[in-house]
Amino acid sequence: MKESTIFVYERPELRDPIFIEGLPGIGLVGKLAAEHLIQELNARKFADLYSPHFMHQVVIKKNSVVELMKNEFYYWRSPDDSHRDLIIITGDMQVPPTDSPGHFEVVGKMLDFVQEFGTREIITMGGYQVPEIEGEPKVLASVTHEEMVEELKGLPVVFREDEGGAIVGAAGLLLGLGKLRGMRGVCLLGESLGYIVDAKAAKAVLSVVARMLNLELDMSALDERAKETEEILRKVQEMQRAMLEQQMPPTQEEEDRGYL
Amino acid sequence: MKESTIFVYERPELRDPIFIEGLPGIGLVGKLAAEHLIQELNARKFADLYSPHFMHQVVIKKNSVVELMKNEFYYWRSPDDSHRDLIIITGDMQVPPTDSPGHFEVVGKMLDFVQEFGTREIITMGGYQVPEIEGEPKVLASVTHEEMVEELKGLPVVFREDEGGAIVGAAGLLLGLGKLRGMRGVCLLGESLGYIVDAKAAKAVLSVVARMLNLELDMSALDERAKETEEILRKVQEMQRAMLEQQMPPTQEEEDRGYL
Amino acid sequence: MKESTIFVYERPELRDPIFIEGLPGIGLVGKLAAEHLIQELNARKFADLYSPHFMHQVVIKKNSVVELMKNEFYYWRSPDDSHRDLIIITGDMQVPPTDSPGHFEVVGKMLDFVQEFGTREIITMGGYQVPEIEGEPKVLASVTHEEMVEELKGLPVVFREDEGGAIVGAAGLLLGLGKLRGMRGVCLLGESLGYIVDAKAAKAVLSVVARMLNLELDMSALDERAKETEEILRKVQEMQRAMLEQQMPPTQEEEDRGYL
Amino acid sequence: MKESTIFVYERPELRDPIFIEGLPGIGLVGKLAAEHLIQELNARKFADLYSPHFMHQVVIKKNSVVELMKNEFYYWRSPDDSHRDLIIITGDMQVPPTDSPGHFEVVGKMLDFVQEFGTREIITMGGYQVPEIEGEPKVLASVTHEEMVEELKGLPVVFREDEGGAIVGAAGLLLGLGKLRGMRGVCLLGESLGYIVDAKAAKAVLSVVARMLNLELDMSALDERAKETEEILRKVQEMQRAMLEQQMPPTQEEEDRGYL
Repeated sequence: MKESTIFVYERPELRDPIFIEGLPGIGLVGKLAAEHLIQELNARKFADLYSPHFMHQVVIKKNSVVELMKNEFYYWRSPDDSHRDLIIITGDMQVPPTDSPGHFEVVGKMLDFVQEFGTREIITMGGYQVPEIEGEPKVLASVTHEEMVEELKGLPVVFREDEGGAIVGAAGLLLGLGKLRGMRGVCLLGESLGYIVDAKAAKAVLSVVARMLNLELDMSALDERAKETEEILRKVQEMQRAMLEQQMPPTQEEEDRGYL
Repeated sequence: MKESTIFVYERPELRDPIFIEGLPGIGLVGKLAAEHLIQELNARKFADLYSPHFMHQVVIKKNSVVELMKNEFYYWRSPDDSHRDLIIITGDMQVPPTDSPGHFEVVGKMLDFVQEFGTREIITMGGYQVPEIEGEPKVLASVTHEEMVEELKGLPVVFREDEGGAIVGAAGLLLGLGKLRGMRGVCLLGESLGYIVDAKAAKAVLSVVARMLNLELDMSALDERAKETEEILRKVQEMQRAMLEQQMPPTQEEEDRGYL
Repeated sequence: MKESTIFVYERPELRDPIFIEGLPGIGLVGKLAAEHLIQELNARKFADLYSPHFMHQVVIKKNSVVELMKNEFYYWRSPDDSHRDLIIITGDMQVPPTDSPGHFEVVGKMLDFVQEFGTREIITMGGYQVPEIEGEPKVLASVTHEEMVEELKGLPVVFREDEGGAIVGAAGLLLGLGKLRGMRGVCLLGESLGYIVDAKAAKAVLSVVARMLNLELDMSALDERAKETEEILRKVQEMQRAMLEQQMPPTQEEEDRGYL
Repeated sequence: MKESTIFVYERPELRDPIFIEGLPGIGLVGKLAAEHLIQELNARKFADLYSPHFMHQVVIKKNSVVELMKNEFYYWRSPDDSHRDLIIITGDMQVPPTDSPGHFEVVGKMLDFVQEFGTREIITMGGYQVPEIEGEPKVLASVTHEEMVEELKGLPVVFREDEGGAIVGAAGLLLGLGKLRGMRGVCLLGESLGYIVDAKAAKAVLSVVARMLNLELDMSALDERAKETEEILRKVQEMQRAMLEQQMPPTQEEEDRGYL
């Protein structure tokens, strides 16, 4: 596998679908929100993206079955005219931050793929780390085109007027690269302390998305999902860390300790 | 050398061979097990894999002869119908963990190669780091397809029911990428403290493999092999570390010490 | 986006233009100087360079509008015969120092582009870190061809006679790679403590450039610009750091702290 | 520049030349030895190798003239039948240790090039770090083919019988990759404490080379050369370090200190 590859299981007919991204990041806010959205809508998986830029490992799923790290595409077809069709992406990981060209490659493949289905609009979701949170977590909104600020004004989001700030990873790149292709997009980042799997921030972000999409979502299962996710993640990282350390050439200090 | 390259010395006729991997990792469990298996079966070397993704160094073998880092393919042809033909890979190293695309490239080449000989099944071996071990080290099994759990139930292995965990490197990727090609596989990880070359864990893993393959293996030389391996490794790492440090641009701290 | 790509908005007719570079580096000296030059000359933007070697992020500009990291090309056409036409490049970032091949690719694209407009001469600007500065910051000059030292002798710059020193990044590579293409160039580095956005050093460098180009530049707005730049940068880095950390595999220490 | 490129200034007729490598490494032993050999033989420069895998910087040479990092090829044609023709390579740097594929690419280009001139034998030179040295530094020899140990037995070198050890970088890779092409080679590493530019170790290595090549070399200028080299290097690293740090995204700690 030399480039990221998308395995497509179904080619649904979609009408002007919105592309919604929620991949792992601060507080796992985006991933939690996307997974919850998928489950509540009973959205259907139709493609997997594998990439040589993802970690060189498999994760162990239920009943000891291994799978390559991947990102998964789901679609939801609106039953009526009061909603929009959706493509939702979530997954195990993003490209590590040390591999910028890999990020651009993966995000480019995502955009190529959703454009095949006529996508012209993007919503990306994530967390925004703050040292402390007063009351409910706020949602910071950023857009590809200035006129969208006006369009989104009724929503419970914060826009910054001053220049400054950065959105790292797919949540940012999808908008940045999408804009160069003539797409429009908004990024929604929920305030999070960042050290836990943050169901509260995910709820805040998803509430905004629900209002944008005119959807009613039951948020009650989100807390439970956050706990499970945290548990799984911890196990993955425990094995991963040990195996990665073993593969590194030893430092002087390790050698002094007799570490092989 | 732009891509990993396999030098093939012989093209044996093999019948539906199983591919067995044992490359360096935690406690060198997989490598020890593979080397022991090769020696006990008197398996025959038939190919070397070289890669620009391996460390940019040669290792010094007996009598001061240098060789590029490499992975080695051996085959064993069953003398009768009660065993399966085998292809076994072991070697000096895996791709460093900072080079995920390199890992995918190397593992892809391995799979291309063993598929030329009709391989459809894979066994990968390694260590699984735990803080302490009670009694004999257990062997954790993971599979590419859920039905295999049933098939392997008689073996002295542990299956996890809960999701969580990761298998880093070739032991994981071979299964993950193999699965995408329609291959089946199992990964066997022996519990290890990880800080030594772990003959005990290797024995545990290899015992499971022997039962799967209906082989009788004498394990008595494993401890001796572990000690030799540890000694060689230490010498390699000693020279390697010094040379690597010298090639790094100096940090402020080193410069303050007058380090060139 | 597999390679750096230049989006060209206008193809001005230019006569033997000088290419002036000021990208982020020590004390942001080069970037400040270039931006100020652009503003004072009212130079016109005509192209953007995007690169998969830049950070995988967008920056948030005024009114919450996101943009990919980029480098920007401006041109200025001299109104008379006593000045030279100019192409000026500045931008959000340089390729990270861990990606040397990326640096060569980006700088190669820059040179390809400015050569389309007939460029044969280059001026690069930057900072030169010193532990303390006596009086006004000095400007260190380095050249592609020895005879240029004589030509530039009237300027308030310092030439070193002894071998030693290195110019890292675009300010160096543009000269080094340009020289291989038969171009001539000079690098001007202003003394800077490096820990602030250094308007003083930028002024020193820009004064030299102004004399070389026979331009009169009002420097009074430079201090204000430095303060604004510092503020924007701090916000960008704050968000960026948090998001990057979240995407890294956890170290042992972080895991002990329960950091996800 | 997408790949390493060799600029060739002359195509000398050489008869079965030996290729001798001395690039920066431990104690700069190899580089010192190669430079001294070039000067004593009055060898002639005929090609430069530039690479996008070298550091993205220029070095400042005498009189403030900048040059890309490079490796340089010299040749020496024997005046009579009692010596061999030589190709010698030295230079500013090797590929950083984080870029293994880059190392393979550069060394591959070197071998392609010297094979154009009929080279079939290689001598590589370097340092071998030890914690302390008793008496004169010893020279450790390693070879591509076991029979060479016998051939070289008269020389004042040490051969190790036991397996273990590694030769990192061009000194190792040239032999390893050369061997795959059917070339023969020896690596000579002089004992060095490694923290200084080590004229003593260079002398030890070069003495062995002189005996192998039947050359008489005056070693008296080596100490002076070592001092100059140390001074130049220190200046290069001082500027380089500051510029590299400035280009890195800030860590939390740096941000707390208000570092930009």
